[in-house]
Amino acid sequence: MPQPAFDLTFDPAAIEHLILTLGAIGAHSGTGVWRRVYDPEWVAAQALLAEWMGQAGTVVRQDAVGNLWGRVEGTEGGKAVVSGSHIDSQCPGGRYDGALGVIAALVAVKALVAAYGPPKRPMEVLSLCEEEGSRFPTAGFWGSRAITGRIAHGDADRVLDAQGNSIAAAMNSVGLDPGLIPNARRNDLAAFLELHIEQGPVLEDADRSVAVVSAITGIRHTKVTLVGEQNHAGAFPMDLRRDPMAGFAEMAGGLVGHAHRLGRPAVTTIGRIEVWPNAPAIIPRDVSFTLDARHPRADDYAALHQTHHAMMAEIAARRGLALTSEVQFDLPPTPCDPAIIAALTQSAQALGVAFVEMASGAGHDSQQMAAICPVGMVFVRSKDGRSHTPEEFSSLPDIVDGIRVLAGALYRLAY
Amino acid sequence: MPQPAFDLTFDPAAIEHLILTLGAIGAHSGTGVWRRVYDPEWVAAQALLAEWMGQAGTVVRQDAVGNLWGRVEGTEGGKAVVSGSHIDSQCPGGRYDGALGVIAALVAVKALVAAYGPPKRPMEVLSLCEEEGSRFPTAGFWGSRAITGRIAHGDADRVLDAQGNSIAAAMNSVGLDPGLIPNARRNDLAAFLELHIEQGPVLEDADRSVAVVSAITGIRHTKVTLVGEQNHAGAFPMDLRRDPMAGFAEMAGGLVGHAHRLGRPAVTTIGRIEVWPNAPAIIPRDVSFTLDARHPRADDYAALHQTHHAMMAEIAARRGLALTSEVQFDLPPTPCDPAIIAALTQSAQALGVAFVEMASGAGHDSQQMAAICPVGMVFVRSKDGRSHTPEEFSSLPDIVDGIRVLAGALYRLAY
Repeated sequence: MPQPAFDLTFDPAAIEHLILTLGAIGAHSGTGVWRRVYDPEWVAAQALLAEWMGQAGTVVRQDAVGNLWGRVEGTEGGKAVVSGSHIDSQCPGGRYDGALGVIAALVAVKALVAAYGPPKRPMEVLSLCEEEGSRFPTAGFWGSRAITGRIAHGDADRVLDAQGNSIAAAMNSVGLDPGLIPNARRNDLAAFLELHIEQGPVLEDADRSVAVVSAITGIRHTKVTLVGEQNHAGAFPMDLRRDPMAGFAEMAGGLVGHAHRLGRPAVTTIGRIEVWPNAPAIIPRDVSFTLDARHPRADDYAALHQTHHAMMAEIAARRGLALTSEVQFDLPPTPCDPAIIAALTQSAQALGVAFVEMASGAGHDSQQMAAICPVGMVFVRSKDGRSHTPEEFSSLPDIVDGIRVLAGALYRLAY
Repeated sequence: MPQPAFDLTFDPAAIEHLILTLGAIGAHSGTGVWRRVYDPEWVAAQALLAEWMGQAGTVVRQDAVGNLWGRVEGTEGGKAVVSGSHIDSQCPGGRYDGALGVIAALVAVKALVAAYGPPKRPMEVLSLCEEEGSRFPTAGFWGSRAITGRIAHGDADRVLDAQGNSIAAAMNSVGLDPGLIPNARRNDLAAFLELHIEQGPVLEDADRSVAVVSAITGIRHTKVTLVGEQNHAGAFPMDLRRDPMAGFAEMAGGLVGHAHRLGRPAVTTIGRIEVWPNAPAIIPRDVSFTLDARHPRADDYAALHQTHHAMMAEIAARRGLALTSEVQFDLPPTPCDPAIIAALTQSAQALGVAFVEMASGAGHDSQQMAAICPVGMVFVRSKDGRSHTPEEFSSLPDIVDGIRVLAGALYRLAY
């Protein structure tokens, strides 16, 4: 692909206006947002975006699950180059996680069409629904799963919120027919590009505004249970104990320490533990914990889990503890597409935006979309590495850098 | 003290009859007992014991908190030699924890008087109340605390059960006046000897029926809290984390491992942990845990806590975690009285009962009684080291060994 002449300027104040206007719908906790899929706030936010997409010159439609698409036809037709993210939030979340990627796509596509006219390939702006699973915990990536055909018949009746209402009922309440979900399937996409806040401290640590994402990490959640022998904390000598808490301590130290030694991008987290009977003067009978282990490269991902397995088996056997482990979910690593990485990298270099290349340690809609098309992502620096909180923040200069890099890549891919 | 001629035989069947008859009051879960202080089952059990104490030739009285005393006057008067334990149980507990010590004292005193007539010093059989704190969690050692004057004015109104009823109301319901608690105080005791099941596996491991207890362990419960930084389990690199779970793992390994290296009789247990927010994909913000650390020798007890403190401070500082610790209670080690240890040891040797000398890792009424008189204890082997469960069990031959050793010591002290 020859290096085209490309230059666009973006007005920070106009972008800020979009962020604050969208953030006002479902505003919560001062700077936060509480916007759950199919709730009135979500409906109002999608309606506003539909209006903005229309003003940007795109043809707007809502698909069968409520994803919003704004399309610009391409002079040469073919598969579409798509950019977007999600507007549902954590409860409460911030103004940036997801929403910034929809606004970025909207602003970029509008500016491209205004400056360069219709593209060769179709371009679409996409606002996805229920990425977070914040209303329906088992419905994470609902919108992108519909597009990729990963929602099975009957799922909509089985997916429930905390009050026991089905997502099918919630869809009905906003005029969507769950029976039509298969219609949301797309098989005519050339690329999906997602701009997202980093949600971590790597860019801040590296003093860069943006990152080109090389891969989305593989994530495995394992529930591990250690069963020992419950006994009196005073009357049982150390040498005769089979103490699952002591076994847990050695395992947790080994598992987390291994990721430390591997260094970036390996991460291993033990976030949840349950102990029985959990009393100060009783050697516990059992300890259960969750093991969240991530690596963005397939070989390293497999090696990480193999090491974990061997380490836990050895410690449990040596300490006379019964070990069971159950993989709760396993999302293999998703490499970003080399051509999209190249488009983003060339865009940043041509614009003089200093960037880092890094893997995403969090899951994203792009991971799902990779099932049907090449994907790529741009990260924008997060203040203090924070997200999923009203305090999450990205600065306007950083956001403008991200949108410029995204627009340059869309130009390379669609023009 | 010259070695007197001493020999008594005990009928195992008669002892078993007492154990099973007492165990039938509040029987629970097959072989267990559910007998809480001031409940009807406890009242019935004390009434039965009063009858048995009368049959044994003692003069019976109930004190101000409901402890039951059966007294045989001594021909030379003076302070009394007392033996007993408690009959309240865990919920459910077994037939042996506590109750066996009351039955042993009853059987021993009855046999001594029958064989040798009245003692020189007064002897008393004692059935204490609410050692376990199983009905009123903050009223552990209620009976022995009354005898030693450790219940403050107003305590009876402040001590509540799980339903919010005060122990004062419970006392009233069985005809006891909480205002008279100070009357339970005794300052005329020469010795308190308690036979108890071991509650641990040391005797089983050593293949011995009984132990002479050298000291009752010091017990300190500390609540430790580690505060780090809550972050996304995927997006935060290991090198930038301040993860209190990883800090906990290192501390727990170090603390428990230290007791392992010290060996018997040091024990350290982490039985309870609370994590916030305790979610699989979130690096926790804080981890709290309880540290139960015990040693029966004062110097070693102090050194143990000093080592723990230094270890936790170093790990917390190195990992950037805020450390707070709160001592929830601290019962210093209680050495048994050398003269009582000698009486028990000589008794066992004279009777040809092979025994071990060991510290008690559990707390006992004797620990309280040590405030007002010399104390000593005999342990009887526990099957599988178990207690606080309906499955706890001690064999009749072991029980008879224990009672013979106890009776020989009472003979040495009172005759």
